[in-house]
Amino acid sequence: MKILVTNDDGIDSAGIVALAESLKEIADVTVIAPHDEQSAVGHGITMKIPLRVVNYKMNGTFFGYAVEGTPADCVKLGIRNILGESPDLVISGINHGSNTAINIIYSGTVSAAREAAIMDVPAIAISVASHDASDFRYAAKVAKMLALKVNEFSLPKGTLLNVNVPNFPEEEISGMIVTKQSKAKWDDIYLKRTDPYGKDYYWLTGSLVDVENELETDQTAIKNKFVSVTPIHFDLTDYDTFHKMKSWKIEKQKNEKVI
Amino acid sequence: MKILVTNDDGIDSAGIVALAESLKEIADVTVIAPHDEQSAVGHGITMKIPLRVVNYKMNGTFFGYAVEGTPADCVKLGIRNILGESPDLVISGINHGSNTAINIIYSGTVSAAREAAIMDVPAIAISVASHDASDFRYAAKVAKMLALKVNEFSLPKGTLLNVNVPNFPEEEISGMIVTKQSKAKWDDIYLKRTDPYGKDYYWLTGSLVDVENELETDQTAIKNKFVSVTPIHFDLTDYDTFHKMKSWKIEKQKNEKVI
Repeated sequence: MKILVTNDDGIDSAGIVALAESLKEIADVTVIAPHDEQSAVGHGITMKIPLRVVNYKMNGTFFGYAVEGTPADCVKLGIRNILGESPDLVISGINHGSNTAINIIYSGTVSAAREAAIMDVPAIAISVASHDASDFRYAAKVAKMLALKVNEFSLPKGTLLNVNVPNFPEEEISGMIVTKQSKAKWDDIYLKRTDPYGKDYYWLTGSLVDVENELETDQTAIKNKFVSVTPIHFDLTDYDTFHKMKSWKIEKQKNEKVI
Repeated sequence: MKILVTNDDGIDSAGIVALAESLKEIADVTVIAPHDEQSAVGHGITMKIPLRVVNYKMNGTFFGYAVEGTPADCVKLGIRNILGESPDLVISGINHGSNTAINIIYSGTVSAAREAAIMDVPAIAISVASHDASDFRYAAKVAKMLALKVNEFSLPKGTLLNVNVPNFPEEEISGMIVTKQSKAKWDDIYLKRTDPYGKDYYWLTGSLVDVENELETDQTAIKNKFVSVTPIHFDLTDYDTFHKMKSWKIEKQKNEKVI
């Protein structure tokens, strides 16, 4: 099995090192990750400026390719030019901090895996649910197990797995559950401050507010110390509304005036 | 009706000016848009650095608030701090270039509208299907008509409309159709070049490849000169796979070992 490993925390983060090491036990692993941290970049891709790639060494040994771009760039460029062929699997992570609910839209970690799914390559995004996480060994084992499961059962084209692991020692983990994306939302607050030159600036802060308590959602699962595995895709069509909008009478055929 | 107008091409682009002027005929319009062009930034938000806002004048008259951030930042900060309340509608555009198929994931224009939907504010993203578009009058009329329709019929919370307008004179437009997101994909190519100092760099190019010919998809609709209106949402759960994964037997309850 050939696995491309990437992330959004940057090629030198502890999470990607633990992930790559664990996957090397079952696969031929190539690390292609952002040169610098790229959190919350969403699904940005670089088009207006060129991308550069450098060989990144760790303790004097080649560890992987560092791309001066976004996580999605790493996957696109990695598959097209560095590997030159599709790997069997792309795994993105292990992210510091959960990627649940609406955060999967902002997340660079998830976007890298989504870019792989767009390219018809099975993919997994994996995060540990704490920004202060320092021990990625358990999450790395989970990634390895799920890589084998994806290889065994396969995913439909365009579907990826978004995995969140509670930040607790293995013996305190409650279990594992297949989940849906939670509807929890950010209660955003922008702090307004004044800089030393008298100009105002705004700084984003806030907290994620739960709106449901169903164990089968990503957010509730990790709160209950379950490993959460959510299958997601990128068909954003709201089919219910698609059908309901027929009654809006905005559809016009040829020879009918639209406005 | 209070409408917040934003975009990703920047506050000084022709598309947003045409949009704001058209909407002022039916609503109280506030323009809050990126200071600089933000195409293909995806759903990035700014957290690590502060945001600044400047009053932007056009021909000596106040036109709107220019935010030194992403389109999603404009909507978040605009609603939370500049307006201080939810508008009745957010409209993002008019973008130079279509936002169909997978491009809606990369698009800053769509992400701004999606950020509004996340905040429970009805939203429309609108694009003209040519990067060389210069006449936005027809698309601006379409935006105005759809703003009134959304006001009349309302959208479910979390749903937005993604509108694409063919780049043709009004008399050549075939009609208008409610569509689904097309499955068309990018055939990406990275050109590899060498800089004047002997270092390699990669530049993304490529073309969107159609995979279907159903008029009720965004991509096919605009190719046939129809205005395309796609309802989209941000629940990315793949419910089919969610149910099928029960057979993977990865779910473990308390007191069962996960791995």
